[in-house]
Amino acid sequence: MRASRFLFATLRETPNDAEVISHQLMLRAGMIRKLASGLYTWLPMGVRVLNKVEAIIHEEMNRAGSLEVLMPVTQPSSLWEESGRFVQYGPELLRFKDRHNNDFVLGPTHEEVITDLARNELKSYKQLPANFYQVQTKFRDEIRPRFGVMRSREFIMKDAYSFHIDQDSLQETYDTMYDAYCRIFSRLGLDFRPVQADTGSIGGSGSHEFHVLASSGEDDIAFSTESDYAANVEMAEAVLVGERAAPTQELKLVDTPNQKTIADVSAFLSTDTKDSVKALLVQGVAQEDGSVPVVALFLRGDHELNEIKAEKHAAIAAPLTFATEEQIAALGLTTGFIGPQGLVEKGLTVIVDRAASVLSDFVAGANQANKHATGVNWERDAQYTEVYDIRNVVEGDVSPDGKGTLQIKRGIEVGHIFQLGKKYSEALGCKVLGKDGKPTVVTMGCYGIGVTRVVASAIEQNFDDKGIIWPLAIAPFEVAIVPMNAHKSPRTLEAAETLYAELQAAGYDVILDDRDERPGVKFSDLELNGIPHRIVIGEKGLDAGTFEYKGRADAESVNISKVELLAKIAK
Amino acid sequence: MRASRFLFATLRETPNDAEVISHQLMLRAGMIRKLASGLYTWLPMGVRVLNKVEAIIHEEMNRAGSLEVLMPVTQPSSLWEESGRFVQYGPELLRFKDRHNNDFVLGPTHEEVITDLARNELKSYKQLPANFYQVQTKFRDEIRPRFGVMRSREFIMKDAYSFHIDQDSLQETYDTMYDAYCRIFSRLGLDFRPVQADTGSIGGSGSHEFHVLASSGEDDIAFSTESDYAANVEMAEAVLVGERAAPTQELKLVDTPNQKTIADVSAFLSTDTKDSVKALLVQGVAQEDGSVPVVALFLRGDHELNEIKAEKHAAIAAPLTFATEEQIAALGLTTGFIGPQGLVEKGLTVIVDRAASVLSDFVAGANQANKHATGVNWERDAQYTEVYDIRNVVEGDVSPDGKGTLQIKRGIEVGHIFQLGKKYSEALGCKVLGKDGKPTVVTMGCYGIGVTRVVASAIEQNFDDKGIIWPLAIAPFEVAIVPMNAHKSPRTLEAAETLYAELQAAGYDVILDDRDERPGVKFSDLELNGIPHRIVIGEKGLDAGTFEYKGRADAESVNISKVELLAKIAK
Repeated sequence: MRASRFLFATLRETPNDAEVISHQLMLRAGMIRKLASGLYTWLPMGVRVLNKVEAIIHEEMNRAGSLEVLMPVTQPSSLWEESGRFVQYGPELLRFKDRHNNDFVLGPTHEEVITDLARNELKSYKQLPANFYQVQTKFRDEIRPRFGVMRSREFIMKDAYSFHIDQDSLQETYDTMYDAYCRIFSRLGLDFRPVQADTGSIGGSGSHEFHVLASSGEDDIAFSTESDYAANVEMAEAVLVGERAAPTQELKLVDTPNQKTIADVSAFLSTDTKDSVKALLVQGVAQEDGSVPVVALFLRGDHELNEIKAEKHAAIAAPLTFATEEQIAALGLTTGFIGPQGLVEKGLTVIVDRAASVLSDFVAGANQANKHATGVNWERDAQYTEVYDIRNVVEGDVSPDGKGTLQIKRGIEVGHIFQLGKKYSEALGCKVLGKDGKPTVVTMGCYGIGVTRVVASAIEQNFDDKGIIWPLAIAPFEVAIVPMNAHKSPRTLEAAETLYAELQAAGYDVILDDRDERPGVKFSDLELNGIPHRIVIGEKGLDAGTFEYKGRADAESVNISKVELLAKIAK
Repeated sequence: MRASRFLFATLRETPNDAEVISHQLMLRAGMIRKLASGLYTWLPMGVRVLNKVEAIIHEEMNRAGSLEVLMPVTQPSSLWEESGRFVQYGPELLRFKDRHNNDFVLGPTHEEVITDLARNELKSYKQLPANFYQVQTKFRDEIRPRFGVMRSREFIMKDAYSFHIDQDSLQETYDTMYDAYCRIFSRLGLDFRPVQADTGSIGGSGSHEFHVLASSGEDDIAFSTESDYAANVEMAEAVLVGERAAPTQELKLVDTPNQKTIADVSAFLSTDTKDSVKALLVQGVAQEDGSVPVVALFLRGDHELNEIKAEKHAAIAAPLTFATEEQIAALGLTTGFIGPQGLVEKGLTVIVDRAASVLSDFVAGANQANKHATGVNWERDAQYTEVYDIRNVVEGDVSPDGKGTLQIKRGIEVGHIFQLGKKYSEALGCKVLGKDGKPTVVTMGCYGIGVTRVVASAIEQNFDDKGIIWPLAIAPFEVAIVPMNAHKSPRTLEAAETLYAELQAAGYDVILDDRDERPGVKFSDLELNGIPHRIVIGEKGLDAGTFEYKGRADAESVNISKVELLAKIAK
């Protein structure tokens, strides 16, 4: 491509309404433009990236045996009524009437349409497993679209759906899709983690989210340093490590006037927060008589409560709600000075986090205002009802699979694979004849990738103060050639043209920056657009037989020979 | 692809609601399925064809220098209000409100969106010409969707839009697009014609339609046997050929009792219809006094009136309406026996078609009931007001460009290129700074291809009683390999696998029919789906060292050697 015939729609200023870096850089680099709230036009620079992302997805889905289909964007509402989602989906489902007053929706996803297709086309277990995918425009009427294409209303999704005679077959395809997703995100050049996700009522290993790691991510991902274990922090199990040592200290009460937080108390007593427990009093499940008991939770001083885990305990009311000051006062306790001593005896359910349960000689509230206890020991000084995993994992925790320790990073969800089971096939009556000759409701899986979101997340993971730093596989161009003073020096332009032709013939995706612009403008446009390799051709280099090369992430350019240059850009 | 892992959704019966052959065959071949009125899901077999069509379009648009963009399917109504089309477009424009009660439309086309983009991004004549295209889903709320994807509500279109500082630049890009379209349809393997289309108020050579020739087409296309002239029959000029010979006969009245039609009269008088004129009396333009005169049109007996051409005459009221029996009686004339003699003298405007104007010694009505005149000659016996082109061209007419004669075939419109001029740029205020430094409204062109329609039209042009006969370039698979009794004969399966691997490695798109089906089922599925090359591998052939080959359009299969086989399928 010659830059003079391309659309460089770069902006010098960061647009006001762009909050996240990918949105800012996609606007500044001239990749997208806003048409209306949550609606974006992809400019030529953006489309090039999008096409490369889509090509990799197509290749890997085909390789994995998924068959490409294309379903309509517009869908009859009747199918959504059959599945029950016409009501459930809420206002994100855009509904409209056609000229004949029939009801339609703009598809935010295609479970209903593909299940309708499957119930008509699939007749026998012999046709299973079947796996269909499409890359297609979706619409979700987000109440507050934001972050550019990261959360837009219209977006491109790769969605796949599989159909099976039984769970074993689903698991096999699910594993194939898991591997395909790993290949896709690896080939895209992204640092990602497949993460165990909450499967709700389905259970098992039935759902994985694929997260691109980026500090701007909305989710905290815990992953092992030595295995492929990864989970949302909310989901990651904090395993019990070590055993409780025997008590060595006597229980002592110490004055801690106005020292209510763990940090304050630990500093005041010159102890480590790790050697203390903190109390959280929450609402228990209402009793038959209507009374609502208080449940006491104890965590190690340096740990944070995981509300999702706590809510799973049968004694705790969901959603998790903290006890009121009145309830606490009624128990004769004072916030900031609560310890586990004597609570079980008061009739409270006391739940101790696993890590807190192996402490000995620890610091806790004394259950008296302005006093804490030191040398507290479980069983000797304080009883508990149950040890339970109620904390967020932290970096350095042992990985739940026993391999390595956990690291935590933020992630952006770009893919999701899910064992749907029979939710849609039962609702829509999608049955095939089984081996026994009887109609059998099929078992389904679904597999999504947010294609437009992948582009934004790649930027969130790869940028600096000059702009985007594209992974080679999805860069709009792989190599940029900049002839210096091309409009005055036929010699540099000629050399640039020669190299341009040569690299194109060798299969590189090259842009020749032949624009009548100052070198500074060209350099900043190319850096903003994250072109991986930049080759500058100037008079001096031509005299010396060298090229000025700079990788996008390099600090400085280097003058190198043709052989060295070709080695630099070799794929 | 292994057929056992593919979806053959072939149907033995022709679906009731499919009227045209492409719709029937796309359903029977398992390419598409109806989701709702005018909405179709493309199955794997159909998507393969669609992808090949799209790939060729992408390649040629890129080669022609058009830059790919991607605009949203959903568009804010405000832009359509700016262009004036929110009202003009009528009920085919699907309108809806989002959750915030803002007005949107489902885009049937993207002139408004691209012009909005251009007015924001293009600042100077230096950025022109610019040419943007997309391949994207459109929606037109057709009142009666039919013919499958030939006239569906949701469809895929390649639409391109170009921006220019002046008409010369537009013409240059227009010509480039014309050439690109010719390359596209040639590469698709279609017999097509670029046809001059009605440009309405724009005039000039500002619009061409691209028609795939097929007997089921809705338009009659006239094209030269010796040049690239082609036009809709309605548009094709009927040129004046020859000169009027001097009269040789006297005017004579003959009895023609109840002989009212040209065919009847000619048979009765043993003359050729070519040697007679027929009269058509139509409503003239209303006069200032409110009276509506009758205008008499005369055509050669074997020619048909072209209403569009006639309407362009200043004396004739549009839309063209025939005179009533009362009007005709008031003139003292009788339908079936009207001739040109004496009409001008009665005060009528008499318009004579060019071909009728060079007749001499012809037959005409005698303006008396049950009588005709023979030996009629213009000027001597009958006066006229004007000679004018008011007929449809017929096969054998001289081509308007003077090269060759005209042939007429039916065509399906699959592409359209159009010089828009300033219609949208003026309405939306899309201006750039011109060379003179002054804001200049840009000149635009637009270029569409109905991508899904191309697939259907390719079938309309290429089928037989066994099914589709795909052009090689867009066949879902190029080669099918069928091992005979594969489930009993490991030898044929092994040979088939070897050939399959070999042909795939050589770059062929091959399907290995390894299904556990009878050969007859496989053969009819493959023929229905129009796979260009079929290779059957059986025990006898393996013994003899031959392969059974049949091209899709061949009447019989042949047993040939490997070398001959490779020559047959060579691209």
